[in-house]
Amino acid sequence: MSPMLITVINANTSDEMTQAIASGATAVAPPGTEVRVVCPPMGPASVESSYDEALSVPGLLASIASGEREGSDGYVIACFSDPGLDAARELAGGPVVGIAEAAMHTASFLGRGFSVVTTLARTCGRAWDLAERYGMRRFCRGVHACGIPPLALDTDPAAVQTVLDSCRSALETDGSDAIVLGCAGMSEWSDKLTAELGVPVVDGVRAAVLTVQSLVTMQLRTSARTDYAAPPPKPYTGLLRPFTLPS
Amino acid sequence: MSPMLITVINANTSDEMTQAIASGATAVAPPGTEVRVVCPPMGPASVESSYDEALSVPGLLASIASGEREGSDGYVIACFSDPGLDAARELAGGPVVGIAEAAMHTASFLGRGFSVVTTLARTCGRAWDLAERYGMRRFCRGVHACGIPPLALDTDPAAVQTVLDSCRSALETDGSDAIVLGCAGMSEWSDKLTAELGVPVVDGVRAAVLTVQSLVTMQLRTSARTDYAAPPPKPYTGLLRPFTLPS
Amino acid sequence: MSPMLITVINANTSDEMTQAIASGATAVAPPGTEVRVVCPPMGPASVESSYDEALSVPGLLASIASGEREGSDGYVIACFSDPGLDAARELAGGPVVGIAEAAMHTASFLGRGFSVVTTLARTCGRAWDLAERYGMRRFCRGVHACGIPPLALDTDPAAVQTVLDSCRSALETDGSDAIVLGCAGMSEWSDKLTAELGVPVVDGVRAAVLTVQSLVTMQLRTSARTDYAAPPPKPYTGLLRPFTLPS
Amino acid sequence: MSPMLITVINANTSDEMTQAIASGATAVAPPGTEVRVVCPPMGPASVESSYDEALSVPGLLASIASGEREGSDGYVIACFSDPGLDAARELAGGPVVGIAEAAMHTASFLGRGFSVVTTLARTCGRAWDLAERYGMRRFCRGVHACGIPPLALDTDPAAVQTVLDSCRSALETDGSDAIVLGCAGMSEWSDKLTAELGVPVVDGVRAAVLTVQSLVTMQLRTSARTDYAAPPPKPYTGLLRPFTLPS
Amino acid sequence: MSPMLITVINANTSDEMTQAIASGATAVAPPGTEVRVVCPPMGPASVESSYDEALSVPGLLASIASGEREGSDGYVIACFSDPGLDAARELAGGPVVGIAEAAMHTASFLGRGFSVVTTLARTCGRAWDLAERYGMRRFCRGVHACGIPPLALDTDPAAVQTVLDSCRSALETDGSDAIVLGCAGMSEWSDKLTAELGVPVVDGVRAAVLTVQSLVTMQLRTSARTDYAAPPPKPYTGLLRPFTLPS
Amino acid sequence: MSPMLITVINANTSDEMTQAIASGATAVAPPGTEVRVVCPPMGPASVESSYDEALSVPGLLASIASGEREGSDGYVIACFSDPGLDAARELAGGPVVGIAEAAMHTASFLGRGFSVVTTLARTCGRAWDLAERYGMRRFCRGVHACGIPPLALDTDPAAVQTVLDSCRSALETDGSDAIVLGCAGMSEWSDKLTAELGVPVVDGVRAAVLTVQSLVTMQLRTSARTDYAAPPPKPYTGLLRPFTLPS
Repeated sequence: MSPMLITVINANTSDEMTQAIASGATAVAPPGTEVRVVCPPMGPASVESSYDEALSVPGLLASIASGEREGSDGYVIACFSDPGLDAARELAGGPVVGIAEAAMHTASFLGRGFSVVTTLARTCGRAWDLAERYGMRRFCRGVHACGIPPLALDTDPAAVQTVLDSCRSALETDGSDAIVLGCAGMSEWSDKLTAELGVPVVDGVRAAVLTVQSLVTMQLRTSARTDYAAPPPKPYTGLLRPFTLPS
Repeated sequence: MSPMLITVINANTSDEMTQAIASGATAVAPPGTEVRVVCPPMGPASVESSYDEALSVPGLLASIASGEREGSDGYVIACFSDPGLDAARELAGGPVVGIAEAAMHTASFLGRGFSVVTTLARTCGRAWDLAERYGMRRFCRGVHACGIPPLALDTDPAAVQTVLDSCRSALETDGSDAIVLGCAGMSEWSDKLTAELGVPVVDGVRAAVLTVQSLVTMQLRTSARTDYAAPPPKPYTGLLRPFTLPS
Repeated sequence: MSPMLITVINANTSDEMTQAIASGATAVAPPGTEVRVVCPPMGPASVESSYDEALSVPGLLASIASGEREGSDGYVIACFSDPGLDAARELAGGPVVGIAEAAMHTASFLGRGFSVVTTLARTCGRAWDLAERYGMRRFCRGVHACGIPPLALDTDPAAVQTVLDSCRSALETDGSDAIVLGCAGMSEWSDKLTAELGVPVVDGVRAAVLTVQSLVTMQLRTSARTDYAAPPPKPYTGLLRPFTLPS
Repeated sequence: MSPMLITVINANTSDEMTQAIASGATAVAPPGTEVRVVCPPMGPASVESSYDEALSVPGLLASIASGEREGSDGYVIACFSDPGLDAARELAGGPVVGIAEAAMHTASFLGRGFSVVTTLARTCGRAWDLAERYGMRRFCRGVHACGIPPLALDTDPAAVQTVLDSCRSALETDGSDAIVLGCAGMSEWSDKLTAELGVPVVDGVRAAVLTVQSLVTMQLRTSARTDYAAPPPKPYTGLLRPFTLPS
Repeated sequence: MSPMLITVINANTSDEMTQAIASGATAVAPPGTEVRVVCPPMGPASVESSYDEALSVPGLLASIASGEREGSDGYVIACFSDPGLDAARELAGGPVVGIAEAAMHTASFLGRGFSVVTTLARTCGRAWDLAERYGMRRFCRGVHACGIPPLALDTDPAAVQTVLDSCRSALETDGSDAIVLGCAGMSEWSDKLTAELGVPVVDGVRAAVLTVQSLVTMQLRTSARTDYAAPPPKPYTGLLRPFTLPS
Repeated sequence: MSPMLITVINANTSDEMTQAIASGATAVAPPGTEVRVVCPPMGPASVESSYDEALSVPGLLASIASGEREGSDGYVIACFSDPGLDAARELAGGPVVGIAEAAMHTASFLGRGFSVVTTLARTCGRAWDLAERYGMRRFCRGVHACGIPPLALDTDPAAVQTVLDSCRSALETDGSDAIVLGCAGMSEWSDKLTAELGVPVVDGVRAAVLTVQSLVTMQLRTSARTDYAAPPPKPYTGLLRPFTLPS
């Protein structure tokens, strides 16, 4: 049997972020599964706004199209705003899971309520939107910004301590049981934070890779019965070739 | 005083659809308001999937960027999936309203419940998502597909009768008070349908133009206090120039 | 074409409040629209309780009955508890909009969340009820009382500063994007408050007048298909004549 | 100890309806409790619309004011739209319970879901509103109109059979466990319907009388801590004397 | 007519708690009603966890089985986590009401919002679950632990003051109108607390006894139409005899 | 490294059901993971009511206590009513997942809505309760009973066809994208049903085993911060020894 191939897509074009994602993704991949972490061919340097998020989607879909040609069994969208998830599900043959989606579901197995600790304050609204979309609003007790931009997580030596402080404060304020890390760039710190905080700290990258692994193991793929069927082919004017749907 | 300028953006690249939108938009514009209906420089021929919707957003944002240079006072996103609404609000100086958003709010003033009549079955889920997002789920009693693709609304001579039949059936099934037209391409028919059905039929294009007109009259614009502040500038790799944010 | 006539009904019998309402209502009326602000023939001096609200409704309905005889095209109920809205919709031929209703919908176009700043603490519950009724609970992040009774808004020279302070505090506490003014008597201050606060401040009187203006422009009126059909005629014992429905 | 006095207020001016209410109310009153069923001094002949409901409230509040002078320990509002409930709670010293409120709560103790069987189709929306207000929406699986106007319940010999048929159909359609009777005028039939249907049939008049009985027994009265405090005294122009609050 | 028999079941095996429950239950029973307060033959010494709650259910069901043999007309489950309520409804011929259920419903008649004051912090989640189950989430503004274990309520002389302080703080924090006592062991204090606090304080034991009294008076019993029908008979391995259903 | 041990607990005492569960559970266990499927020492022959469910919990908790002594890393509760889940989480050191919980979450990754196909009609209410508890109500479009008792799934040769027919009908009625199998006894049929129906069919046994596998891989365990902390030790009267907590 050929090994399972899971493609993990960073939604921005930062190599450092791609490395951080790879560290979490490969940490949990079992023998027999290849995890391929990719950076899309176009898009924003980081996702800090709805504008950035919207402009990350074409590149992300191009990466899915590439993955399809390479025989990928499933996909992880490795940005906590889960950009383009519906479109990706239409495009991909195998399952697609976002890291916010996977992290929130995972946290719901571990306690009555979780707190999300994210980067900039302006991303909090999106996290609440996603909690509602996934049915996780009843478990999500708070979304807290640590104030560090995504790309500075990697370069600011004080970042991990700031995130740790935000987690402590979030647990206290929300009376919650667990932490959900609100940025793929925090993936490397989940073990350290769990150890320091004494509560489960969920990294969406790990959680999403394992969710896709489980779905593929059960031979479950996105239903094509209604809205997630393959998109009807048509001309796309003025867009680069990778977005042309395979006929 | 200079006239008010409202830019109405068709999210696909079809000229026929742009014409249909223009007919509704100009029908309600008061003297002293210029309504400019534009077709984006890139994007899908029609929006029939989440994939199409995602790929319509870059062109739509380019049209907003153009509108900002031209001094537009406000914007209408004239596609019933309201693509890119959050991103557009970050980018634009004036208010931005989607036609699904405006139509649903408008219908809520006219009765206890409305039915949406849309094009293809695969777009129904998105309409429900939007009803929830806007708080209109309690008023939205059903979303019904008439089975006609968006571009065929204009070319199929039987389309208006099919939509009328779908409206009748929706009113009966849902016990609702009003109809919301679920595609910008149906804009031309709202008066005819109101007359035939004897209930209010809401065209989102008209509703959105008047909503923007009202917001500008009240000098109200999108709040920049939290998530809708202007996006932080940054490099966007591999994307066409129009997406580069004005510095 | 005859000009559009919009009747704006103050729900209490205070002339000063009627003046304040008129200032907001006429500020936004376009050329070709006559806005008539009326004070009902009977009712409470101010609306500060559910008891007052209940007793304001007969007079308010009498004003609608008068408006119908005068050919009014639509109505605004200019009291933030939107008293008698359902009954008014049954009675009137044209659309009827409440100022809480219009203000909350309007604020939902401008940000992710708004705060209501109202008069007495005992009216907060009613504001929450209305937010829920209109589907705006997801946008309404807080209802804050400034502690000033409605009629004192006009006579207390410190009132505007107190309201401004309440708005500042509400924005901070709720993390919201916009303010909804919770009393018709605050209508005169919306521009001043917007300027001071740097966020959109929505006056329901202006918003409701423009909403009715838009509905009439689109030739949309309350659906008579189900609950809002004209009430069945019958005897009303012991009540003044204006309330007897014309047969 | 003086006997407990419970005042049950019919919201319309029909003597036949008052009789029907009295039959249910007195059937459950224990020894030591006097139940006084009253007809208000003014109001509509029947409540069939929001307009009727609004115009029933002044008379109903007058009856509460009379009850207060007579030392009533608690009140039942005996109309299934529970008109004026908030205002009545502000005015009365003792507890006030509506029959829709009591019936829905009661039905929630008896099964997972109930169906409401009411009179005219146009009252269904109001029943849904109340279900939501009382938190009973999760138990209320359907509201069904039998098509008989309230006053005809008493005069139409076929009415009881029509209501029985509506109950049967409602149970089947909704898969529900119990019936809530949606009009005070159906009060006489609850035992007969329970016997025929083999499921609990809840009469709001009985349920509300017993709820008030229980609250008074526990010496519990409406909280005056926030919104339900006595209304601030003030002039009421053009209204009959009973509505002026005692200072 | 034989007197009504209501069986009140303490869910733990503490005699002191059974006494406390009896004091509240008998305080409200009318002449002609016998209230029998029982302690189950097996179970935990107190209910302080979901584990305790689960292990209290077999004994509680055994008490219901005994009650059925003794001709009990209805049952109260006198533990604020309402353990085994669904199972008890299947087993009993007459109505079954939990004290959390009865207290929350009762409080909803008395104001816009209530606060629950309970024992240990770890029971707060369960109280929220129940508020949701009963549709009372919209009325429940907060659940507050006073930090005293259930059995210490009876033995710690400072307990009543601690509970009083918790009530005061809860009213302030939540802006609520009433208090719901979150443990059967607080039953004795409801009058004293009402007097001190000036707001309604609801004791679930009293409320549940009166609710059952009312249901039996109306001859209403749990519907056997769907899920609450008697359980299908079958072998129960390794469990004590009382739990075997009578064939 | 020692292999991972996952204990899967059948909630009834049927050996056939235990075999059916084992077939699904072992089908997805990766190399290096031992799956131990156990039948509790006491309890009902099948779970067909809330009464059965309540009486299955002591045996199930005994199995958890045994698992703890044997070093189990995590647990699956293999009954679609997820009995005793909260209590089990307090008792176990590692994660505990119910099959309804895992199946519903899994189905939410695969489409916009799923239908549950379960055994007897009387279990449908419980399935709805769980969908709400897990936040999956927005994805759960219908719960459908096939009418076959749990133990007959194994013995009735026509059962699989009946379930298949129920699935087809559920997909059509609900317009859903996926099927959730509503009984552990259907575990063997998931591949066959997926093949026949052309939509994802989710078996909770497989989904729960893989969810526990993933949680243990990520070293995540139930948070002990609030409600799920170990239960306070105390005497349990009249219950078998296994339920006494280890001190």
